[in-house]
Amino acid sequence: MRENNSFTLDELAARAGEYVTCVRGGQVLISDVCALYPGQMNAVAFADAGTRRALLVQTAAAAVVTTSEQAEVTDKPAVICTHPRETFVHIASAFELSPPVAGVADGARVAPSARVASNAAIRTGAVIEAGAVIGPATIVETNAVVGREVVVGEGCYVGRGVVLEPGVRLGCSVTIGPGAVLGARGFGLVEDGSGWRGMPQLGGVFIGDSVEIGANTTIDRGALDDTRIQDRVCIDNQVHIGHNVYVGGRTLIAGCTGIAGSVTIGADCRLGGGVGISDHVTIADGVWLTAGTLVPSDIPTAGVYSTGLKPMPVRAWWRCVAGLRRLDRLDRRVRHLEASLRTNRDS
Amino acid sequence: MRENNSFTLDELAARAGEYVTCVRGGQVLISDVCALYPGQMNAVAFADAGTRRALLVQTAAAAVVTTSEQAEVTDKPAVICTHPRETFVHIASAFELSPPVAGVADGARVAPSARVASNAAIRTGAVIEAGAVIGPATIVETNAVVGREVVVGEGCYVGRGVVLEPGVRLGCSVTIGPGAVLGARGFGLVEDGSGWRGMPQLGGVFIGDSVEIGANTTIDRGALDDTRIQDRVCIDNQVHIGHNVYVGGRTLIAGCTGIAGSVTIGADCRLGGGVGISDHVTIADGVWLTAGTLVPSDIPTAGVYSTGLKPMPVRAWWRCVAGLRRLDRLDRRVRHLEASLRTNRDS
Amino acid sequence: MRENNSFTLDELAARAGEYVTCVRGGQVLISDVCALYPGQMNAVAFADAGTRRALLVQTAAAAVVTTSEQAEVTDKPAVICTHPRETFVHIASAFELSPPVAGVADGARVAPSARVASNAAIRTGAVIEAGAVIGPATIVETNAVVGREVVVGEGCYVGRGVVLEPGVRLGCSVTIGPGAVLGARGFGLVEDGSGWRGMPQLGGVFIGDSVEIGANTTIDRGALDDTRIQDRVCIDNQVHIGHNVYVGGRTLIAGCTGIAGSVTIGADCRLGGGVGISDHVTIADGVWLTAGTLVPSDIPTAGVYSTGLKPMPVRAWWRCVAGLRRLDRLDRRVRHLEASLRTNRDS
Repeated sequence: MRENNSFTLDELAARAGEYVTCVRGGQVLISDVCALYPGQMNAVAFADAGTRRALLVQTAAAAVVTTSEQAEVTDKPAVICTHPRETFVHIASAFELSPPVAGVADGARVAPSARVASNAAIRTGAVIEAGAVIGPATIVETNAVVGREVVVGEGCYVGRGVVLEPGVRLGCSVTIGPGAVLGARGFGLVEDGSGWRGMPQLGGVFIGDSVEIGANTTIDRGALDDTRIQDRVCIDNQVHIGHNVYVGGRTLIAGCTGIAGSVTIGADCRLGGGVGISDHVTIADGVWLTAGTLVPSDIPTAGVYSTGLKPMPVRAWWRCVAGLRRLDRLDRRVRHLEASLRTNRDS
Repeated sequence: MRENNSFTLDELAARAGEYVTCVRGGQVLISDVCALYPGQMNAVAFADAGTRRALLVQTAAAAVVTTSEQAEVTDKPAVICTHPRETFVHIASAFELSPPVAGVADGARVAPSARVASNAAIRTGAVIEAGAVIGPATIVETNAVVGREVVVGEGCYVGRGVVLEPGVRLGCSVTIGPGAVLGARGFGLVEDGSGWRGMPQLGGVFIGDSVEIGANTTIDRGALDDTRIQDRVCIDNQVHIGHNVYVGGRTLIAGCTGIAGSVTIGADCRLGGGVGISDHVTIADGVWLTAGTLVPSDIPTAGVYSTGLKPMPVRAWWRCVAGLRRLDRLDRRVRHLEASLRTNRDS
Repeated sequence: MRENNSFTLDELAARAGEYVTCVRGGQVLISDVCALYPGQMNAVAFADAGTRRALLVQTAAAAVVTTSEQAEVTDKPAVICTHPRETFVHIASAFELSPPVAGVADGARVAPSARVASNAAIRTGAVIEAGAVIGPATIVETNAVVGREVVVGEGCYVGRGVVLEPGVRLGCSVTIGPGAVLGARGFGLVEDGSGWRGMPQLGGVFIGDSVEIGANTTIDRGALDDTRIQDRVCIDNQVHIGHNVYVGGRTLIAGCTGIAGSVTIGADCRLGGGVGISDHVTIADGVWLTAGTLVPSDIPTAGVYSTGLKPMPVRAWWRCVAGLRRLDRLDRRVRHLEASLRTNRDS
């Protein structure tokens, strides 16, 4: 969703400062950003060093953000730079919808003992429970719930319908997608005579600075200590993070990944989508896991790990699986052949 | 949840019109639908051509919807037809809970600049933000949020606690299950000096007509262009669909499936539960994927694909896995045997 | 999140009654619980028979809950018992945050035809729709929705933002985590001429006593009969349970598991995280499935089952996969070798 303002290409290039080498035709008026192909009139697109040149020729965009080599292909207005993608990120931010004004909206409910910074925005239907603290320039969106004693830092964005349970503390510049739940009780159980009984879950959730959390993701609170997500971690949608998990700085976690209780994940890791990690597993810094990888035990060394299979037509796959089930026997048959051959040779 | 009205079997059969061959004992009063076994007095059940005849004899149901062959097994009142399941769908709809009356409920909050059709229903706690448009005969349920400038077509159902972020446009007759989130920002990141930074996500989500979306499912908005879900697509619960994904018409997506950014899925596909598709993958029309299949690369031809394994008792499975890890060596051993045999023969 | 009260160790030990053998230094004042290492002053920690003794020596905790053998390592105040973990659960409950007072909060909306027990608590922003029944000592949290005619038993906890759709009935002492959705329509479809059409979903959801359901979990209502979750089942976060599923008593289901429609799961089963079960599958009592196992067909006997693989460095893994694809050929090569050898021997 974007704002419909207009800027000259020069004004836009100025937002990317250091990245830009020069601007060609900087007076052209730009009112939107677009994809390179097919492109959009009055909008600016971007092309990397690797982009096919034909697309640069054919685009309907009014201007492009690109490298000096690629810029030679077209005579359109252009922002010429060494890192087109990063430059484009800065330019595009000019068109992001500016948030409505600060203050507590009509229909929001703030408990008397809660403290809300004067320039924070609490949208309609949002609830700030007793003792909670909302930092400056933070937005709590429509129908979000900030539970008792929760602390939200400066410049955070708490999305629509988010639930922050008691015991959650957010750093600064944290973004939480719609429907995410932080601080629910962990899946810690103990057997008594008649069945399962929940272990008390008295810890909290600590989220560092500049963390991004996706829609409908869940992060449980710790049993005694906190669940901890360090600075600049990015978490996609529908991820589940169990109680007492630790995630090191700058790690990326793609959608639908499930991380069981008491897992430790290092810094600068990258987890593909649908990864599953069993409880109490420790993963070193710099581990990359491809999509769908299951991790039942520790990974002590950085590197790329995988258990993924490419899908095969079912019949071919069934033959594979049948072979897999006969592997043990095949091994014995080969051993037998080796023995026979030795006997033959010896005799 | 159903309404407790009564109808004659004739009245019910009339709802299925074209499908029905004839009705036997059409004056019987029916006040509910039920499963064939054990069945329920005063209710109507259905039996396919393949249903075991013993169940038709034993059912406690007051009447059955079935084929002419199956109808011979019993002398109960019956709606006789060629497609019992489809006929039953029409009959059962008579008992579906009718929605309460239209209008903006007490406790709903509609922004002054939003436009709500006069026969739409906005339930209590629902929020319609600035500039949003709600079409005729559409229901926005309790505590749902329709974000700024969102457009909802005619005859849609927006479930309890749903969040539609700015940039979402729904066609007509779209059904969205409780807790679903459409239009959250995608997981598009770019590395700068100190870590990850979110790419601007300025696109929207376009949903065609007669699309069904399940509970707690998430569909992210596009980065520049829209994420697009075409007409008559059906999506189950807890599915994640990333930014800039395209899903072709009439495709089915079962629960817990994760689809990464910029994936293209053809029309008339069927994705089993828990499928995972990596970013930028293209899948042809008419591809069926069995449950749990991972798709790391394009599938250019229609057909059924799989990577699923049947679970084995752990000890047997461990032997399989050990064999799998020794496969490379086994291959070498066989090659060695082949060479030896050739030598033997030649000498 | 915990209450900051203080108790003597004797008072705390009294809460665990039968489990406790004796108390040493019972007059010490305790104001919190903590993990054994590093431990926390004024707090009590626990140590099992298997805990490393060095930790017991080094802990900063004011007191420990442990066995008589372990207690000899330290002269700190101690609750001595045979089951330290279970004893600790009882002690820790003293510090759990007590819920605010009962009654219907300002900003909650209760339909005139709903019946709410006088000592139930309905938090702000919660909605109790027409005809719903809320039992004694039950808490319906902030922004939760209890749909039309829903029945909630005694001593239940309905978390923040939970949605209970019409047709849901909860037993007693049921706990539902934030954002969970019970009673959404199942993924039951029938093909008509122009595409898919939803089968009517007229059943409900029945939840037994002492069931625990995690955050953002979804349990669909049945098509004609109910979806049933029996007593003392524990379900983690982000689990999906389809329509007409039956889950037997005391079964555990870990996070991100997906269970398709009409599945029957026995009593006392344990499903690891990310398990997937195909529709209409029946699983016997006492089946344990390791994390990530896919179940395409029935498991008629108790036992531990698996399809999980340990992740391997990608290059090694690719060799494995290549081998897997050549298995069929390898088998033929070995058969050929066996034949040659037989010929050699015979000649």
